[in-house]
Amino acid sequence: MSKTIVLALGGNALGESLADQMVAVQSTSNAIVDLIAHGHHVVITHGNGPQVGMINVAFEAASQTYAHSPILPMSVCVALSQGYIGYDLQNALREALLNRGIEKSVTTLITQVVVDEKDPAFDDPSKPIGSFFTKEEADELIAKGAHMKEDAGRGYRRVVASPQPIDIIETPSVRALLDAGQVVIAAGGGGIPVIRQGNHLKGAAAVVDKDWASARLAELIDADLLIILTAVEKVAINFGKPEQEWLDFLSVADARRYLAAGHFAKGSMLPKVQAALHFAESRPGRKTLITMLTKAKEGIEGKTGTVIG
Amino acid sequence: MSKTIVLALGGNALGESLADQMVAVQSTSNAIVDLIAHGHHVVITHGNGPQVGMINVAFEAASQTYAHSPILPMSVCVALSQGYIGYDLQNALREALLNRGIEKSVTTLITQVVVDEKDPAFDDPSKPIGSFFTKEEADELIAKGAHMKEDAGRGYRRVVASPQPIDIIETPSVRALLDAGQVVIAAGGGGIPVIRQGNHLKGAAAVVDKDWASARLAELIDADLLIILTAVEKVAINFGKPEQEWLDFLSVADARRYLAAGHFAKGSMLPKVQAALHFAESRPGRKTLITMLTKAKEGIEGKTGTVIG
Repeated sequence: MSKTIVLALGGNALGESLADQMVAVQSTSNAIVDLIAHGHHVVITHGNGPQVGMINVAFEAASQTYAHSPILPMSVCVALSQGYIGYDLQNALREALLNRGIEKSVTTLITQVVVDEKDPAFDDPSKPIGSFFTKEEADELIAKGAHMKEDAGRGYRRVVASPQPIDIIETPSVRALLDAGQVVIAAGGGGIPVIRQGNHLKGAAAVVDKDWASARLAELIDADLLIILTAVEKVAINFGKPEQEWLDFLSVADARRYLAAGHFAKGSMLPKVQAALHFAESRPGRKTLITMLTKAKEGIEGKTGTVIG
Repeated sequence: MSKTIVLALGGNALGESLADQMVAVQSTSNAIVDLIAHGHHVVITHGNGPQVGMINVAFEAASQTYAHSPILPMSVCVALSQGYIGYDLQNALREALLNRGIEKSVTTLITQVVVDEKDPAFDDPSKPIGSFFTKEEADELIAKGAHMKEDAGRGYRRVVASPQPIDIIETPSVRALLDAGQVVIAAGGGGIPVIRQGNHLKGAAAVVDKDWASARLAELIDADLLIILTAVEKVAINFGKPEQEWLDFLSVADARRYLAAGHFAKGSMLPKVQAALHFAESRPGRKTLITMLTKAKEGIEGKTGTVIG
């Protein structure tokens, strides 16, 4: 049965460097083409952590070297990252489709996601982005006004606010392209965060979580299924402990209970389960599959992964 | 009468710096909304000279400061510039439309333009992009493999190859969004230049002329009218000489004759008249209007500008 699917790719599906990205998007594309070949209508969303950090840092370095080089606001960095990743991804997908004899356009939309300027996330920047820095490099950047945090013993990274997505401006465009039978890449990096000021949209100093943005997009286009891809095949409770248990199915009630009990790691499985719960609660029948990319096809067939909702 | 129009914006419609860009796109948007309010279906294309140069330079500077920062190929720089400019432009257009009570989605498509790897332009990089550098800065960049040329006494600029556009990959997406009644921003910066290698599209070290790309797009979507916007109200022969003559209309035969006689300046009016001629010759009835942004509405009404075809 043909489904409308929002497929959220994690950073590991994209690679860290430009060379990594080109290799990663190729194997990613082959897995996505499996879904399209089965007749599903697919919208792809993706993270941009390493890429948006790299872009941010590049313009900062350039502004130190050349007086006329600008420092870019975070919203503009996200816009650039959508072009950067979308170009590679749409290209690789197009090629993988053609290699399977499927002629289908793949289009990247520059996508803006509305956030609330009163979102408490703006008071506590906490989402790490981009490269790792030494303590000395970090101190220099902090002195210039950047927010930096030590990240799990691996070095220092920039942190930015991560507010909730309220609306997605380009929803009608995603719908129009899906209706035309196309594959759409949208809400890259969680979308360009903007704040409504009357008819004006003002760029926000933030990065929206891509799983949250994907859940919101799935809701807005009335998708049947949200697939959140990660590095593990299933969601587990008591992860990494002797009583660890992999889950095939997670009801809304259980998801709430496990979230409250703190079963899921912040910045890792937590936003995925939260986003899945949000989508499930938005209308009866809406389901989320959490699994790894190479298992997505089997997951849709009910053979693996964790289904929430 | 409602027309399908491809509107090519020049660099002067976008501004040089980020702050300039935000101001420039606002007045640009108001002029474009005039056309949309009259019922025309509009696809907007735009240049990216200053922006793609700025992006290229930023990543080069960053790669000198941080070992892990990549140098980006020109094709990737164009992809970033489409995100950079498209975000601001779609946002400003959306606001200008809403201010006039028009609810219409405005969408930027990451657009790839196919070029021929045997195009002679690759043997002679000649299109200037980006910022001006001193002789010393230029010599340093030349030593690293960049092509630089002195630009009319204003300093040194990078130059890249500017091959002819053969095809535009995302044409079906432009069509689908136009059919859905949307405003589309496509082929930004002349499009991301790619070379066909079987099913694979390989990024090319080039920048496609935005007027040529716009003419090709107008042809592919079967537009009624191509509007090429520039800093002057009309095309002139003997420009800047005592016998200068502003033209209201330019037939295909006259356009060919004036081109052969060298009436139009390279890098300025020449590619515009060439692109207009190409569009006119692609099918009888296809016309190009060359004028300035603020005169576009009057130009469509036949009151000013130069019509070719």
